[in-house]
Amino acid sequence: MKITAVIMAGGKGERFWPQSRANRPKQFLSLTNDGETMIQKTVARLTDIVDINDVFVVTNENYIGLVKEQLTDLPDGNIIAEPKARNTAPCIALAAQIIKKKYGDAVMMVLPSDHLIKFTEMYVDTLRKAIEAAEKDKNLVTIGITPSYPETGYGYIQFSDMDESMPGAYKVARFVEKPNIELAKEYVNSGTYLWNSGMFVWKASSIIANIEQFLPDVAEGSAKIGETYGTDAFDSTLKSVFPELTAESIDFGVMEKAKDIYTIPGNFGWDDVGSWLAVERVNGADEYGNVEKGDIVSINTKNSTLIGGKRLVAAVGLEDIVVVDTDDALLICAKDSTQDIKKIIESLKNCNRNELV
Amino acid sequence: MKITAVIMAGGKGERFWPQSRANRPKQFLSLTNDGETMIQKTVARLTDIVDINDVFVVTNENYIGLVKEQLTDLPDGNIIAEPKARNTAPCIALAAQIIKKKYGDAVMMVLPSDHLIKFTEMYVDTLRKAIEAAEKDKNLVTIGITPSYPETGYGYIQFSDMDESMPGAYKVARFVEKPNIELAKEYVNSGTYLWNSGMFVWKASSIIANIEQFLPDVAEGSAKIGETYGTDAFDSTLKSVFPELTAESIDFGVMEKAKDIYTIPGNFGWDDVGSWLAVERVNGADEYGNVEKGDIVSINTKNSTLIGGKRLVAAVGLEDIVVVDTDDALLICAKDSTQDIKKIIESLKNCNRNELV
Repeated sequence: MKITAVIMAGGKGERFWPQSRANRPKQFLSLTNDGETMIQKTVARLTDIVDINDVFVVTNENYIGLVKEQLTDLPDGNIIAEPKARNTAPCIALAAQIIKKKYGDAVMMVLPSDHLIKFTEMYVDTLRKAIEAAEKDKNLVTIGITPSYPETGYGYIQFSDMDESMPGAYKVARFVEKPNIELAKEYVNSGTYLWNSGMFVWKASSIIANIEQFLPDVAEGSAKIGETYGTDAFDSTLKSVFPELTAESIDFGVMEKAKDIYTIPGNFGWDDVGSWLAVERVNGADEYGNVEKGDIVSINTKNSTLIGGKRLVAAVGLEDIVVVDTDDALLICAKDSTQDIKKIIESLKNCNRNELV
Repeated sequence: MKITAVIMAGGKGERFWPQSRANRPKQFLSLTNDGETMIQKTVARLTDIVDINDVFVVTNENYIGLVKEQLTDLPDGNIIAEPKARNTAPCIALAAQIIKKKYGDAVMMVLPSDHLIKFTEMYVDTLRKAIEAAEKDKNLVTIGITPSYPETGYGYIQFSDMDESMPGAYKVARFVEKPNIELAKEYVNSGTYLWNSGMFVWKASSIIANIEQFLPDVAEGSAKIGETYGTDAFDSTLKSVFPELTAESIDFGVMEKAKDIYTIPGNFGWDDVGSWLAVERVNGADEYGNVEKGDIVSINTKNSTLIGGKRLVAAVGLEDIVVVDTDDALLICAKDSTQDIKKIIESLKNCNRNELV
């Protein structure tokens, strides 16, 4: 069966302010030392499984220019631009309808555009197993990540038995929301929970059937738009119908309710790069625990992440501090306060300083 | 007797990097909110005691342009430019010889250019008492500061009896170098020690006599230069003779050895503005203990000094941090590490990055 990829690239990525901005969110930034952006890496690591002509990028219409600029081989018709953010269920439904219209049916790998993966070969192997499982019946397959510590920032997937007919695929018992630290420890110690990575593999027909069952208005609206794909009516139908669809996540709207859900446990150096703290995990720290990018001079400084811009950054006596310098805004943040960066953005919005947001 | 002022403005002021640079040290910066530079304030607060035509500024020859730019009323002939830094004794000796040549004799107030004083009237009163004491005999008068806490960064002056004939003047028992914390506490508790402010008042003839006694080569060389003051030979004599004078401080070279030393205790809100920490003392902190100058947004930040440049500075979760932003260099420094800022400058010099020093 035809294999396609649907790259989810509509996120705002505020946690990487001041590098990320409303007009250039995290997926369009390079947070590694190689200059490749997150979305470029996401597409590049799929080369062995899927042809670029079968890759679809779902994004906000404001980011069409960035997608074209960064993914120069991607056909323009493969960019699906949401006129309004409606969470993940409507955009996955629409992508499924477009794939149905174009190919009849096909396997869809639904993948975030802003995660990093260290071991590409192991990742590709995991996806291949997921594809195999997804091709059977109406299975919905999710990639679970073997947890390495009790993270409270992720949802978890409880799995039960392996299915003999599908190597590597385990039946999903339930999805659970972000736990508190006690529960997270319990989950990790039990050996029956995985992190929910937000990566899914299924046939277009399988997810459409499930959306019809659990989110009928989303199914109906997305079908109406999908029917016009490839015609002159597509843009106008998208603009009139999509914004009215129920805003719902695919996890809550479908996965937590559906049957025939399987998970493939993956262990391929996954990182969702959820905050500036991830830069240390991804790039590795020096002997003092520091990450230094750009023009940095540091004295008696440890466990700090220092990301320079066009000017010298001099750090003296710092510990557990994140510094990010850009042309028009500078962030200095305690490591245990990165979740408060959004308050800076709120404060700037309240002052109508939208050029900095 | 004629009253003159000699403003000492040759210092490098490295502790205020990155605002201070080799080509614009602390005395030429504004560290308050009013835009007036330190040297401008120093001269302005003397208006009631001394005519601008009787103010002399001793500085490094690299700073002549800054002095002219910032002190527009000062006659060009009153700028004494050292061709080479030789510490304070040679430059005071030279100023004394120039004053002797110009006025025969006069009272000299020798004053640093980079201190702040909160209560100008009390300061002027103290200087008037010092002038009165200095006009008698060959007295050398130093202004002592009533200590408010056991500072280990200053030298101290031990005084003994008040002199009945000179109101407010106490005989100096001895000068002591920067003490450790135990000694500093002892000094402050004893009630007989003052901080050495580096402000001196004496007649030109008195200090010349003392320099002749304790630093004869400095006396001889400075006299040779002074004789040519106002003639075409001055510049060349200064350039050939001054660099050869013994580099010595007036404290160690003269004050610690001389007789007839008096101190006038002053209590006029003096601050030597010795590091970025002084900005908080001078400007006052807000209810969170922060000083914020420029375009700052802070969240959960306390006891920090944030000095912005042309861009937004966003501070999140910081405590006891100093941030100073300039066009080409940014400093982020723990408050207890401000003495290490000079290591940044050393490091930059070692890398031949002199444009940032």
